[in-house]
Amino acid sequence: MSKQRQLKLGAMVHGVGHGWGEWRHPQAQPNASVNFDFYRQQTQLAEGAKFDFVFIADSLHIHEKSSPHYLNRFEPLTILSALAATTKHIGLVATVTVSYTEPFQVARQFASLDHISGGRAGWNVVTSWLSGTADNFGKAEHPPHAVRYRIAKEHVDVVKGLWDSWEDDAFAYNKQSGEFFTPGKLHALEHKGEFFSVKGPLNIARSQQGQPVIFQAGTSEAGRNFAAENSDAIFVSSETFDEAKAYYKDLKQRASAFGRDAQKLSILPGIRPIVGRDEAEVESRYQQAVELVSIEDAIVALGRPFNDHDFSQYPLDAPFPELGDLGSNSQKGGSDRIKQLAKDEGLTLRQVALRFSRPRRDFVGTPEQVADALQTWFEEGAADGFIINSLLPDGLQYFTELVVPVLQQRGLFRDEYSGNTLRDNLGLEVPANRHAITQIHEKSEAVA
Amino acid sequence: MSKQRQLKLGAMVHGVGHGWGEWRHPQAQPNASVNFDFYRQQTQLAEGAKFDFVFIADSLHIHEKSSPHYLNRFEPLTILSALAATTKHIGLVATVTVSYTEPFQVARQFASLDHISGGRAGWNVVTSWLSGTADNFGKAEHPPHAVRYRIAKEHVDVVKGLWDSWEDDAFAYNKQSGEFFTPGKLHALEHKGEFFSVKGPLNIARSQQGQPVIFQAGTSEAGRNFAAENSDAIFVSSETFDEAKAYYKDLKQRASAFGRDAQKLSILPGIRPIVGRDEAEVESRYQQAVELVSIEDAIVALGRPFNDHDFSQYPLDAPFPELGDLGSNSQKGGSDRIKQLAKDEGLTLRQVALRFSRPRRDFVGTPEQVADALQTWFEEGAADGFIINSLLPDGLQYFTELVVPVLQQRGLFRDEYSGNTLRDNLGLEVPANRHAITQIHEKSEAVA
Repeated sequence: MSKQRQLKLGAMVHGVGHGWGEWRHPQAQPNASVNFDFYRQQTQLAEGAKFDFVFIADSLHIHEKSSPHYLNRFEPLTILSALAATTKHIGLVATVTVSYTEPFQVARQFASLDHISGGRAGWNVVTSWLSGTADNFGKAEHPPHAVRYRIAKEHVDVVKGLWDSWEDDAFAYNKQSGEFFTPGKLHALEHKGEFFSVKGPLNIARSQQGQPVIFQAGTSEAGRNFAAENSDAIFVSSETFDEAKAYYKDLKQRASAFGRDAQKLSILPGIRPIVGRDEAEVESRYQQAVELVSIEDAIVALGRPFNDHDFSQYPLDAPFPELGDLGSNSQKGGSDRIKQLAKDEGLTLRQVALRFSRPRRDFVGTPEQVADALQTWFEEGAADGFIINSLLPDGLQYFTELVVPVLQQRGLFRDEYSGNTLRDNLGLEVPANRHAITQIHEKSEAVA
Repeated sequence: MSKQRQLKLGAMVHGVGHGWGEWRHPQAQPNASVNFDFYRQQTQLAEGAKFDFVFIADSLHIHEKSSPHYLNRFEPLTILSALAATTKHIGLVATVTVSYTEPFQVARQFASLDHISGGRAGWNVVTSWLSGTADNFGKAEHPPHAVRYRIAKEHVDVVKGLWDSWEDDAFAYNKQSGEFFTPGKLHALEHKGEFFSVKGPLNIARSQQGQPVIFQAGTSEAGRNFAAENSDAIFVSSETFDEAKAYYKDLKQRASAFGRDAQKLSILPGIRPIVGRDEAEVESRYQQAVELVSIEDAIVALGRPFNDHDFSQYPLDAPFPELGDLGSNSQKGGSDRIKQLAKDEGLTLRQVALRFSRPRRDFVGTPEQVADALQTWFEEGAADGFIINSLLPDGLQYFTELVVPVLQQRGLFRDEYSGNTLRDNLGLEVPANRHAITQIHEKSEAVA
């Protein structure tokens, strides 16, 4: 049983919910996105259910039409640091952009979170797709999509390099001799690249898990290659089982092509399950969730992957408009998929908007039905696990109390944590420090 | 009694200590600077003693000669966020530079910490004085001292402007109508200045204390003016009582000249008290602390305010070397003071280095003696309170257990917290949102 492949589970925690109207649910706390007690309670629910990690999404530009869950919310690294102090085992994954941050600061804050939490930090690397973000960071323009992925590659390489500044046995702590660290085990990075110039070294040691875990969510061609080459886990949003299977196969192949062990790369679709104790409750909860999605909100939400494009200018019941190149420099993968879906199925704007915003039926059901769906996706090559993006104020509670026990009974999910770090949870090894590796190689060569 | 002016107390927490050799004390934990349990325990000691705040120092550049307490330590905002989750009343003050950060990110992370902690965040604004920092952030050169203070002024103005993005009553939360916030109560900053261009608005509301508290530590001419104009509290390092009095008077006058209520500006010398239960223990603890300061470490420490200048090249027992302009673009106030002290007293390099690194005798004594010294500085116009930079591994414990009760018996320090925010602790009002003020003015004018 213990050798059985098990699925991974993450919980997306984001206050008033992912949708535009979720805060209007009678039981929703409309200030949840800046309510620490809410985040603590949700995270402790997830940890009680032995989830691998919690996941905090992010963005850096708002305007009057932005959704409530973007307007007023915690910054990911600060809220996860606070949650680190109130949890023991669950991983803590923060979304942080490469397009508007300095690698030294990103490396340092994640390393600090990793030490605070005893090795539970993860970085979800994003490139930011809203061009308005540039206006908040004094940039003349938002970098083009392809450039953003070049920035991402260099940024992540620098951050990983900084994380290896100190070898694991660098600290001698010899009080007699006064040797605090061993000379030669501290390494400056001396990086000079296309976008960044960072000397180093970083002013914090490696943590229990060596380096924080890298998450990514690429769906465009550039995004897929970046994710396959650089990430330990991928957060993907797939419309259908077939689409998920195709993505899964593609990313595993790309990872192998980069010379990696594809089994170690976890592909985790983000899903919005709705669970009820029986069919009646399932239907009632599904209808509640559907009613929270107004067509007006769905039209605004649809604009987001197209750089907050205003879709209210088009007739609702005419065919989905021709958009040309729109979206190619924002969330390219997501916007391309929406265009393709509308074309393939000949949908109207209203149909596309509602399809995009309403909960899908795939993971709506009784505990057994939802567990069946998860198991199918898991066993038939569509997922290594899932990121649970709960609907309704008590969605995570329903999922953890009703679905997780079924998964555990089936041997598909852990009953207890077997380690202390996020790498332990995800079955990832502690990466050796690059400088220690170099030394071993040099020694081998000297012997040979 | 409750109307009596009371002193303010902050605790500097920094792992292996402020000095180069403190980690070598037999009871010191050499990994304390990345040990969350240590930070939690120190902070809870300070909160148990009803301190106003804990204070985390910082810097962004290390090299092989850096002191152990710089080499490997937590990043301030992450560690304070974790400490927020394990405390209730104590303020949380983080040092963050203006020279290598984006105002949007600084505003956001402090606002997030402020919400997480229920209004206990403070920002110690620094300009960074080590030119090597530029190499970690891809900058061609470290900005000159005068420019750094122009950057500081603009940066702080932008951050404060972003903190006012949302009016306090902006969030309508009307589930029936779907009005999440009231249009017109969200304000973009639209800042375009010499160094920063930031549109806004910020994606997080104001917290319970309105805006985080501003700390500063200026001692140069530019630094003093900046602190007097912009800060709520000043962290100052004064060599003598007379120097502290002169600084206190000068800063209060400057604050008044800026049209501020000088009483609301707290001037807080950083001190390194050593307490013992009786004369014998005092002397033994003082000697322990002195023995941890080697002349080699003192020479390296002396270099720091001079941009890590190498003083080992000069003869130890010759007069303090002529340094010309050196230090004027690093910690100008501190390096000027050292030069002046050496000249005024005709000291050798060895004497200056040891004076700079060894604990002073001013705050060394029995609980009553230390309380007397604090009371004198407080009542005779040298301080509104102190930042306790404890020596020895149990220094803060000694201070909180032995000195604080004496201060409380004398009515000089609180027995209990009277509020929940850092502003409550420091007696500072919640600043009105600038946009709300504008509206009131506009209404008054309309009536007139």
